[in-house]
Amino acid sequence: MVDIIQNKRDGKTLTKAEIQFFVEGYTAGKIPDYQVSALLMAIYFNSMTESERANLTMAMLHSGDRLDLSSIPGIKVDKHSTGGVGDKTSLPLAPIVAALGIPVPMISGRGLGHTGGTLDKLEAIPGFKVEISEADFKKQVTDIGLAIIGATGNIAPADKKIYALRDVTATVDSIPLIASSIMSKKIASGTDALVLDVKTGAGAFMKEESSAVDLANALVGIGKQVGMDCMAIISDMNQPLGNAVGNALEIKETIDILKGQGPADITELVKRLACQMAVLGHKAATIADAQAMVDQVITDGTALAKFKAMVVAQGGNGDVVNQPEIMPQAKYKIELPAKQNGLVAKMAADEVGIASMLLGGGRQSKDDKIDYAVGIQLHKKIGDQVAEGESLLTIYSNTQNVDKIKSLLYDNIEINHQAQPVQLIRKIIQ
Amino acid sequence: MVDIIQNKRDGKTLTKAEIQFFVEGYTAGKIPDYQVSALLMAIYFNSMTESERANLTMAMLHSGDRLDLSSIPGIKVDKHSTGGVGDKTSLPLAPIVAALGIPVPMISGRGLGHTGGTLDKLEAIPGFKVEISEADFKKQVTDIGLAIIGATGNIAPADKKIYALRDVTATVDSIPLIASSIMSKKIASGTDALVLDVKTGAGAFMKEESSAVDLANALVGIGKQVGMDCMAIISDMNQPLGNAVGNALEIKETIDILKGQGPADITELVKRLACQMAVLGHKAATIADAQAMVDQVITDGTALAKFKAMVVAQGGNGDVVNQPEIMPQAKYKIELPAKQNGLVAKMAADEVGIASMLLGGGRQSKDDKIDYAVGIQLHKKIGDQVAEGESLLTIYSNTQNVDKIKSLLYDNIEINHQAQPVQLIRKIIQ
Repeated sequence: MVDIIQNKRDGKTLTKAEIQFFVEGYTAGKIPDYQVSALLMAIYFNSMTESERANLTMAMLHSGDRLDLSSIPGIKVDKHSTGGVGDKTSLPLAPIVAALGIPVPMISGRGLGHTGGTLDKLEAIPGFKVEISEADFKKQVTDIGLAIIGATGNIAPADKKIYALRDVTATVDSIPLIASSIMSKKIASGTDALVLDVKTGAGAFMKEESSAVDLANALVGIGKQVGMDCMAIISDMNQPLGNAVGNALEIKETIDILKGQGPADITELVKRLACQMAVLGHKAATIADAQAMVDQVITDGTALAKFKAMVVAQGGNGDVVNQPEIMPQAKYKIELPAKQNGLVAKMAADEVGIASMLLGGGRQSKDDKIDYAVGIQLHKKIGDQVAEGESLLTIYSNTQNVDKIKSLLYDNIEINHQAQPVQLIRKIIQ
Repeated sequence: MVDIIQNKRDGKTLTKAEIQFFVEGYTAGKIPDYQVSALLMAIYFNSMTESERANLTMAMLHSGDRLDLSSIPGIKVDKHSTGGVGDKTSLPLAPIVAALGIPVPMISGRGLGHTGGTLDKLEAIPGFKVEISEADFKKQVTDIGLAIIGATGNIAPADKKIYALRDVTATVDSIPLIASSIMSKKIASGTDALVLDVKTGAGAFMKEESSAVDLANALVGIGKQVGMDCMAIISDMNQPLGNAVGNALEIKETIDILKGQGPADITELVKRLACQMAVLGHKAATIADAQAMVDQVITDGTALAKFKAMVVAQGGNGDVVNQPEIMPQAKYKIELPAKQNGLVAKMAADEVGIASMLLGGGRQSKDDKIDYAVGIQLHKKIGDQVAEGESLLTIYSNTQNVDKIKSLLYDNIEINHQAQPVQLIRKIIQ
């Protein structure tokens, strides 16, 4: 192990055998934390080649179970987002793609940091279950073409153990380690192809676009090395995505998108991701071909029907698609009036996320219970004109005193005489 | 601690408080190995500023005891060598400097790697004791001006713990860590001033002269920061120093040097170090002034008398100075004849050291017992003319079969039609 650390320290390429040795040894408790943390720090400084990243991904994958979805006919396509505020993309995306005839076996997560995760949002629907047996998961994807569930089985335990160590040794921010961690879990989920939505900006893990591009290249690079069809979109996360931040509010927005009535930005991103998945799923030859198909399944209601079918299949109340008010409702709706005329120049995604978390919509610590009803509904976004006294957003709260939330939001929304319009989709990487 | 790791990882300068926090926390067992090893690797990559090095040195120093030598009158001067083969420099140096009236309280070590250390060599003298109480040590230095003993008390336990971790995490080769480790122990030994002999070449830890210079600058830099008068000599360790390698053989050579009959190279180095110590000890204003004084104490026998006084004071048989044969003698003396005419072009110090170790003169593992009698006596050194059949060296052995030793030596001694003369003293750094 000392030789392995030294090789990486000296900028040499680790062999497949060396990477397997350390991942297996560490998972088995045979290699101590202090050697692995030294190696991780050496990786932080000297990075990893494409082959090293692929070997690390596969070694972490092989440390646990891999879901076998071969019994489900067709090319299964999943999506992974690096996460952001208001990012409910998976929720409308999965039914649209399923409506195109592509099986979408989506394994998703709970909220980390400010806001609820995809699973938390779905649980805002009365009765919705995200913990489903592997057999039922496969059956549902086979029968109705989609399912969104939490992780099943013992997925990449090496990654869990290494991540916990990275968290306490300042080795989280390493592109090869982040990319291998994501890819090991995604490959373990049994999908055939994968679209990656890598966020950049104030509300994203990758603040700089160049880092987001590096991560996207790393992810797609691992996909290529291990034979998984992959592509990535770099998208903006300086302001929240869509208008809704909060669990029930985001389900409501999902339904609006599926009815063709969603906000422009998230609709554009969902459609673009759907087109990419249509191409990866071999249902369309080009993005242009896919565009018409995607528009069609939204217009004719088949995408919304897929969403309703998933909700019902997973125990939820399907009436939600026409009566979103069956979800928990906040007691108070408090407006945030603009203090001046002008253009919205900034609306910091991360701080809006924190505001939603402070209302109860996210977890401050792992065991916090989420309040599905609360959140923030934006009426203005970057580049929009606003008049003094006009509402910038509505705070959905279960407590009446939201002064702190208000000042947090005022501090992070800038109104100015000029604004830089947001380019939502920054780059396509494949 | 994560913030401290991250600061160093990101190239920031750690504060004194941060360094104390990690050294004290680690020594007390409150900070886990895996965080310290990640920090050490970050230090490996991002190095440390002069102030960080000084703060680390002092934090490690304060983790244990510091010898208080203030009761001994005069400016106490010690020497530290980074170690090499045939390096018995301390043995003639301490009595020469003591003969100048400078107290030399020398705390030395045992052999690491190939050959015996200073303490092992002294133990070749019948009766010589290196483990002496602190009170007796101070009394001896006060009475006769010198003592060479093993470490007493609990010296820099933080350094011991950090070194053990570095050893298993590929973070040994870091100049700031090496320098802080050496200086913390030397400051703990209570000396007022320090001469450093930093070796470079095949038989040294620092193979490259530039690395040796970096280390010397780091050591002297820490000295300046903490207010200890320091200077360093960079000296060659491509071939063994002097002609004797082996414990009793090196004591014999020490006596020869003190009689003015030693080999030219080690005599030159010992005299130069003695001059530097005379200046640091305020007994001479310049190296030139010191030179005459050093020559005098060798010529008039006072340096040899000091050596004898030390031997006797530490329980050894003082007759050794005139009858070195009272030390253990090897059964067999086996010559190594040159295989061709020419000039000695190479005589790899490290491999000669290994040959001596294999004969029993050094430790292969920590608990090995040393055979004081064995070793290698060189007759030729780099640049010397040699005729076919002429003896290059004598192997002193207690076993008759030394075929492997012979071939090891032949493999590492090169005779050629040209040779690059060795420049022993490469640089002076102060």
